[in-house]
Parts: sequence; C-alpha cells; structure tokens
Amino acid sequence: MKLALILQYLDFLGTVVFAITGLLAARRKQLDLFGAIVIAMVTAIGGGTLRDLIIGVPVFWTQNDLYIYIVVITTILFFFMARLHRLPVKLLLFLDALGLAVFTVIGTQKAAELGFSDPIAIMTGVMTGVVGGMIRDVLVGEIPLVLRKEIYATASFVGASLLLGLGHLEMEQDVAIVLAILVTMALRVWAIVYKIELPVFISYQEPKASAKSPIDSDPPA
Amino acid sequence: MKLALILQYLDFLGTVVFAITGLLAARRKQLDLFGAIVIAMVTAIGGGTLRDLIIGVPVFWTQNDLYIYIVVITTILFFFMARLHRLPVKLLLFLDALGLAVFTVIGTQKAAELGFSDPIAIMTGVMTGVVGGMIRDVLVGEIPLVLRKEIYATASFVGASLLLGLGHLEMEQDVAIVLAILVTMALRVWAIVYKIELPVFISYQEPKASAKSPIDSDPPA
Amino acid sequence: MKLALILQYLDFLGTVVFAITGLLAARRKQLDLFGAIVIAMVTAIGGGTLRDLIIGVPVFWTQNDLYIYIVVITTILFFFMARLHRLPVKLLLFLDALGLAVFTVIGTQKAAELGFSDPIAIMTGVMTGVVGGMIRDVLVGEIPLVLRKEIYATASFVGASLLLGLGHLEMEQDVAIVLAILVTMALRVWAIVYKIELPVFISYQEPKASAKSPIDSDPPA
Repeated sequence: MKLALILQYLDFLGTVVFAITGLLAARRKQLDLFGAIVIAMVTAIGGGTLRDLIIGVPVFWTQNDLYIYIVVITTILFFFMARLHRLPVKLLLFLDALGLAVFTVIGTQKAAELGFSDPIAIMTGVMTGVVGGMIRDVLVGEIPLVLRKEIYATASFVGASLLLGLGHLEMEQDVAIVLAILVTMALRVWAIVYKIELPVFISYQEPKASAKSPIDSDPPA
Repeated sequence: MKLALILQYLDFLGTVVFAITGLLAARRKQLDLFGAIVIAMVTAIGGGTLRDLIIGVPVFWTQNDLYIYIVVITTILFFFMARLHRLPVKLLLFLDALGLAVFTVIGTQKAAELGFSDPIAIMTGVMTGVVGGMIRDVLVGEIPLVLRKEIYATASFVGASLLLGLGHLEMEQDVAIVLAILVTMALRVWAIVYKIELPVFISYQEPKASAKSPIDSDPPA
Repeated sequence: MKLALILQYLDFLGTVVFAITGLLAARRKQLDLFGAIVIAMVTAIGGGTLRDLIIGVPVFWTQNDLYIYIVVITTILFFFMARLHRLPVKLLLFLDALGLAVFTVIGTQKAAELGFSDPIAIMTGVMTGVVGGMIRDVLVGEIPLVLRKEIYATASFVGASLLLGLGHLEMEQDVAIVLAILVTMALRVWAIVYKIELPVFISYQEPKASAKSPIDSDPPA
C-alpha cells in the first residue's frame, strides 16, 4: 500500500526531528553526548512507548531496531554539526509540526484498529504526539512546553479527532490520514506564526514561591 | 452487590477531585486550558494506569470511556468556574482525602484479588493513591507534595495494610473496605488539621545549590 | 548454577545501594521517612520495572516480595543511622558502581535471553542501570545526574555491549558476565577518580532563564 509506506517514512522523519529537539534541549543544559542521546531517545520514542504499553501491544521499537539506530545516529551527527553550523530553526519548527502530526495520526490509527473507542484512540494519539516532548522537558528541569505555550497538544487533539470523524463519515482512509496530518500541521504552524494561545488562567495574585498544598488558596471572590 | 456500586461512585468522585487538584496546580503555573486538561488527566488516572501496567491487566480507562469524559468535563467546568467563584478549599481538602482513601482501597483490592502477595498489593494500593499527584507535581516543576508534607502516602499505606489485615482476620469484605476508607481519611484529615508530620532528616548543613553526586557528602560525625 | 546465585546476591546488594542513594537524595531535600522510602523504592526498582514493562514480562518485584522488604528495611535502617554516623561515602560510590554494573548485566541478559536483538538488549540493560536514578533526581527537582556528569550511562552502555559481544565470540557466559561487570565498574570508578567527562556542548551564549521553544535559537555561524 502506497500511503502506508509514505507514513512509514514520515514516521522515521518524525523520529529524526523529535531526536533533534531532544538534542537541542540537551544543548541548552550543556549535557554531554551520552546525556544528549538519552534525551533524544526519550523524546523520539517516549510517546509511542507509553502508547504501546497502555494499549497492550509489543513496544514498537523492540520490534524494529531501526528506530534506535535513527536516534543514535541523528544525535551524534547533529551533536557535532551543531558546533559548526547554524541549525535551520524555522525548518525544524516546521518539521516538528510534521512530526507531531504524523505521530498523532499513527497513534490514533493504531488504537482505533485494535478496536478501542474514539476517546481512547484520541488519548493514545495525543499521547504519541506529546509525551516524548513532555518527558524531555521534565528531564531538563523545565515545565513541559506542551503545557505552557501555543497550540501544541490542541493541534494533536484536533488531528486525532478529525481522523476518527472522517473515518465515521466513511471517507477513504488514505484521504482521511492526509487531511488529518495537514490540519494538525496547519494548526500548529498557524499558532507559531501568529503566536496564538489558548485562554490562560487569569492570575488574581502572585503565586507563592512554594505552594503549601495541592489545594491552593483561592482568589477572593 | 451494593458496596461495589457505592465504591464505583466513590471512584468517579475521586476522579473528579483528583482532576480538580490537577487543575489547581495548572492554575498556579498559569497553564492554558489544554495544559490544565493534561495535568488533570495525569493526576486523576496516572496512579491507576501505572498500577494496571505493573499488575499486567488492561488499563482501566481503556475499558471504560467514562473516566476520560469525567476528567475533561470536570476540568473545563472548573476552569471557567474558578474565574468567577471562590473554590471551597476546605471541602476540596476533605474530598481529596476521600479520593486518596478510595483509590488506595481499589488499588489494593485489585492486586489482592489477582493473587499478588500482601506487600505487592500494598505497593499497588499506595501507587494508585499517590502516583497521579506525584506526576502532577513533577510536571508543574515542584518536588511532589506527597514526599514533602504531612501524612499522605503514610495514610494510604495504613489504609492498604488495614484492608488486607482485616481480610486475613476474615472480616466481611464490605466492612473491611469501609473501615479502611474511613481510617485513611481520618488519618489524612487529622494530619491536615493538626499539621502532623513524620520525622524529617535533621539537617547538619545547608544543602548545596546543586549536588555533585548521588552520594552526597556527609555531615561531620 | 553458581554464578547465577552470586548474581542474585549482587542484585540484592545493588538494590540496597540504590535504595541508599535514594535515601541520600531524600536527605538533601529534607524529606520525611515515608518520602525517603518512596524515593528509595523508585531508585532501586524503577529501572527494572520499566525494563520488564517494555520487554513484556511480569515485573520482577511483583514475583518476589524480597525486593520490597530490602528497600523498606534498608531505608528505615539508614534513615536513623545517617543521623548518628558518617556514611562511608567512598565505599558507597564504589558500591553504586557495582550496582550499576550488576543491574546493567541483568537487564541486558534478560532481554537477550528473550530473543530481543542486540540494540534492544543494550537499551534495556542501560535502562535497568540508569532509569531508577533518573526518576530519583527528577522527583527531588534536579536534572538527572546521569545526564550531567561523568561517565555513568556510558559505562553501562559499554558493559552491555561487551556482554553481548563476548557472547557472540562464544565466550562462556559466566566469564562474559564477570568481565562485563568488572569493565563497567572499572570505567565508572576510573571516571569518578579522574573526573573524566564526555565532550559537552560548547556554549556560544548564556542560556536564557526560561527557554521559549524546543527549537532553541542557534549560535551565530
């Protein structure tokens, strides 16, 4: 099947791009090469790993060595390249959006094919797209970007929902996949370009340096 | 069976309350709506997810969509409500204690019924009660409250042990469950009200800003 | 089989030592006894738990209560001992290297015996050795030491590769295991003693307090 093959290549491309975002996080914290490989690995395969554990299938990278090779080679290559050359930041942001879209679609598809219901398939799709980046950020000591900024998980959510919705409308699967990927990417790129953000909590008061309880004190009514 | 049904409702209530504590953590960090949903989700279903993975049964929320709907609806509702109204903090603390107790009992019960030994069942019970809150705190960049303050995991541990102990004494299961829930809650509420804490490490010296090694230097003898 | 038994004892020893490093991290943050037990538990059994989930076998400590007892007793004992006595830091560093080596070899072996390919077995070996410590550091709010300092994951990686390489050379398994453990330890101890580190990213500019994007801005070419 032709689209399946393209999706496979896009999956590898997504793995490369996510590994690079891991590498860049490692660089911000001045980690060494091995630390960078660990972060890149977690970023690239973390989401899919959690997805496979939760839907109860063999973890994808244990069935195909290629993913590990891709991450390790990408990281080593870019680790040294990043010292010499300026990385194409805008291209990377664009490719990161593509990676998010592809991972989301693959994750959603995988769960749906196993017969999980729509909300579960959407959960696993979003998980595949965002969890790797979340662990990356936690490991380098930052509040996950996914939670803080711009439309990221939201784009993933819309893409996953669209894929399933189009499927229920009996649209041909290939077309639905392409559309879901394009919409996810478009939404993400649009959010980056116009710095669109979701509504944020209105802050009534400066949060304290260290909160006392999970049930924080409330703003005066 | 009547208690099973009540336990089911309490489980849903616990899910609501844990989602709200996730939402409150998200508010402290001024996350957007989607970030709040992610944190609420992790807080409410994280513990049970890890438990199910470890005891090797299908992850509970993949078998019943309701949990996901509960978290999403709770978060959206309270996200906007929290802008207008003061949240009933004391009630929430009390409900959080109830959630902890119910999650602990359900987790312990589930492992025990699968034939796991007492220490394992206690581990999975405590895990069900506290892991969601731990991931919540890590995601918003705080040292988990569970580790820092008051009797939280301890209450969960006592409740899980009590449930199994009463079972060995051949107490009727329903009574044991009710007792374990009440004792866990009582211990937690008592700790909150009287600010009871477990013994803490006596600090011999100011900890350094960034430790050099997992094997920290020791205080002079 | 004699080596299998020795390996079993070394595994328990590794569990004790990793629990103690968890305890020490808890002390740096002045956690209470129960917090210390949680951190010690995660440090000692976290890596093996993730390994077993990923290779799809029952989680080791759910099959043998002993691990849980070891962690709890070790933590309680050293929690109070650490108030009275200076802990033997150098011995602990040495034992931590032994723990890393043993965990790595056990993890690699386990995956290889299940028929996973070399890269997967190396991944699971390294994971067994380092993931517990990574979660420990994240929980106490630090960037994992494994990522920051000295040759740690690298030693684990070399040990895992050596074990598999010697196996392919048809060396007797017992000898290969002993060699892999010794080399991992030697590398780690050598790195500690001479403060050897892997190449680190050259920093072109002061990293900003809070990064804006996973795709960080780049140094001028």
